Amino acid sequence: MNFYFLGTGAGIPSKTRNVSAAALLLPEYHGDIWLFDCGEATQHQILSTPIKLSKISRIFITHLHGDHLYGLPGVLGSRSFQGAESPLTVYGPKGIRRFIDVTLETSHTYLKYPLHVVEIDDGMTWEEPHFSIFVRLLEHGIPSYGYRLMEKDQPGSLQVERLKSLGIPPGPHYKELKQGKVITFPNGQTLDGKEFVSPPKKGKKMAVLGDTKFTPVAIELAKDVDLLVHESTYRKGLEDRAETYFHSTNVQAAEIARTAQAKNLILTHISTRFDEEACKALLAEAQEIFPNTWLAYDGFQFTLT
Amino acid sequence: MNFYFLGTGAGIPSKTRNVSAAALLLPEYHGDIWLFDCGEATQHQILSTPIKLSKISRIFITHLHGDHLYGLPGVLGSRSFQGAESPLTVYGPKGIRRFIDVTLETSHTYLKYPLHVVEIDDGMTWEEPHFSIFVRLLEHGIPSYGYRLMEKDQPGSLQVERLKSLGIPPGPHYKELKQGKVITFPNGQTLDGKEFVSPPKKGKKMAVLGDTKFTPVAIELAKDVDLLVHESTYRKGLEDRAETYFHSTNVQAAEIARTAQAKNLILTHISTRFDEEACKALLAEAQEIFPNTWLAYDGFQFTLT
Repeated sequence: MNFYFLGTGAGIPSKTRNVSAAALLLPEYHGDIWLFDCGEATQHQILSTPIKLSKISRIFITHLHGDHLYGLPGVLGSRSFQGAESPLTVYGPKGIRRFIDVTLETSHTYLKYPLHVVEIDDGMTWEEPHFSIFVRLLEHGIPSYGYRLMEKDQPGSLQVERLKSLGIPPGPHYKELKQGKVITFPNGQTLDGKEFVSPPKKGKKMAVLGDTKFTPVAIELAKDVDLLVHESTYRKGLEDRAETYFHSTNVQAAEIARTAQAKNLILTHISTRFDEEACKALLAEAQEIFPNTWLAYDGFQFTLT
Repeated sequence: MNFYFLGTGAGIPSKTRNVSAAALLLPEYHGDIWLFDCGEATQHQILSTPIKLSKISRIFITHLHGDHLYGLPGVLGSRSFQGAESPLTVYGPKGIRRFIDVTLETSHTYLKYPLHVVEIDDGMTWEEPHFSIFVRLLEHGIPSYGYRLMEKDQPGSLQVERLKSLGIPPGPHYKELKQGKVITFPNGQTLDGKEFVSPPKKGKKMAVLGDTKFTPVAIELAKDVDLLVHESTYRKGLEDRAETYFHSTNVQAAEIARTAQAKNLILTHISTRFDEEACKALLAEAQEIFPNTWLAYDGFQFTLT
C-alpha cells in the first residue's frame, strides 16, 4: 500500500503546495483507493497522478475547514461525470452531510453511483473488509478527528510444494489443512495442518490525523503504527503560538511519534511561510527527536512494505 | 479595460483548461476587478496572474452548475484570509445565498469584510458607479443568465490649452464652461462652454453569457456590444446535440454575434474533446460567419480599446 500526497499546504493554496489531500492506494485490494481530506482542486491534482476517481471508494474528512473540504463537491461530481457507478462512502464530522446535500443540490448534480455519508463521532469504530477503523477527537477549536487504520492480519499460506513432496495431491484436504485441522490420509499418514501453514502476515497500522494542537489523543491513535501522518503548521520554538491557534509544531509531531513508538512519521500541512531552506530545517529539527521523519510535498509517495 | 480568462473548459477540469472563470480588470476605475463565474480552483489560477483577491469587488455567477460555482467558497475565504476588508458583492441565481451561507458556515469561515449577496432574476437592471447592468434569463435547463454591462459615457474634457490661448486663466469659470454654460468674461468676451468641451467618450458595452442553447435572448443582450463572451461547447454540425443538452455550437455563437452586430466575439467553455487541431477548426468555422471571433484559452487576455 502506498500513500500519495496530493496537497500538503496549510490554509490557502500556493504555487508549490495545494491545500490538504492524500490518497491511500491499495493495489493489494483490487486497486481500491481511499482519500484523506479533499481541499479545493484535489481533482486537479489527481489529473497528474495514476489515480482514477472511479477507484476511490472511501473519503475520510478529518475536519470541516475549507482547506480540507472545498474540493469534495468537485470530486463527487466529476466521479459521476466520468461514469463511475461503484458506491462511495464519505466519512466526516457532523455537518458534512448538509454540506454535501446543499452543494450537490444547488449545482443540480445528480450522482450516478450510490453515495453513503457517515457522520463520525469520538470513539467510533467500524470494520471495512480489510481494515478496522478507529476514530478519536483531537483538539483544534472546531471538531477535528484522527483516523487509526488497522489492516487485518492476512492468514498464512499453505505450503503446497511441501505437501506434494509428501505425496499428498491437491484436493479438498488442502482446505482442511489450511484451516489447521489434523487429517489422516488413506495411506495411514497423519498430518497436522498447523505445521503446513506459514505464519500469518501482520496487517499494517496507520494513523492519519486532522489539524490539532499537541494532544495525548494523538499518541493513542499512533500507538505502534507503521506510519503516522501528522500536521506541522509551526516550527520549533513557536509552541505557544501553536497552542493558541490549535496547531502543532514539527517537534511536537515528532514527540508524538516517538512516544507512540511509531515506525515512521510524515509531516504535512506546511505553511506557505516556509521556503525550501526552512522546510529542510523543519525536517531536521523533527528528525533530532524522531529520526524516521519525512516531510511531505505535493506528489510525495510513501510505500508501506 | 481588460478581460482575463482564468478557466475556459467545460464540465470538468483538464490539464490545459480549468473550469469557468473570467476576470474583468478595470485599471481606469481604481484597479477594480470583477469576476464572472468561479469554477473550482479559480483562486489557484489567480496565483499565476497579477490579480489580487482584495481588488475583486464584484462576482457575477451566471448559473449554479458546479463548474461555474465550486471555486466561490475558496475565493471568498482566501480573500478574507489575505486580509481584505473592502466589501464584496456576489450576484447570482436564486440558491446562491444558501450555497454561500452553508459552505461558509460548515467550514467555520468568518469573513473580515462585508459580503453582499444579490439573487438575480430575469429582466433585472441596476446601476454600478460606472456601469449599468442588465440581466436576462437564457435557456439552459437550469436557470442560466447573461449579463449585459454598459459602461457610462465619460464626459468630454475641457480644452484647457485653447482657453489659455484666448487669455482665459484657470479658475471657477473652467468648471462652468465644462458644464456647457455660456460665460461673459470681464473683458467682454462671451464663450459657450459647449464649444470648448471635447465630445463625450462612449462607454463600452459587453455581454457575458452563461451556458445556453441558441436563443434570441442572447441577441438582445449582445446588441451592438464591443465584446460578446459566449459559450461554444459543441462544434458545427452538432446543433441537434447542442439543442438536447442546452448548449451552443461555435457557429451558433457566431450567428448571435453577427445578428447582434457585436464588434468582437470570444468563444469559451471549450470541451476537453477538442485537441489543438480541433480548436483551430472551431475558431475557423466561427470566423467564417463572424470574422472578429477569438477562441479563449486559460490566460487569454482581451483589451477593449
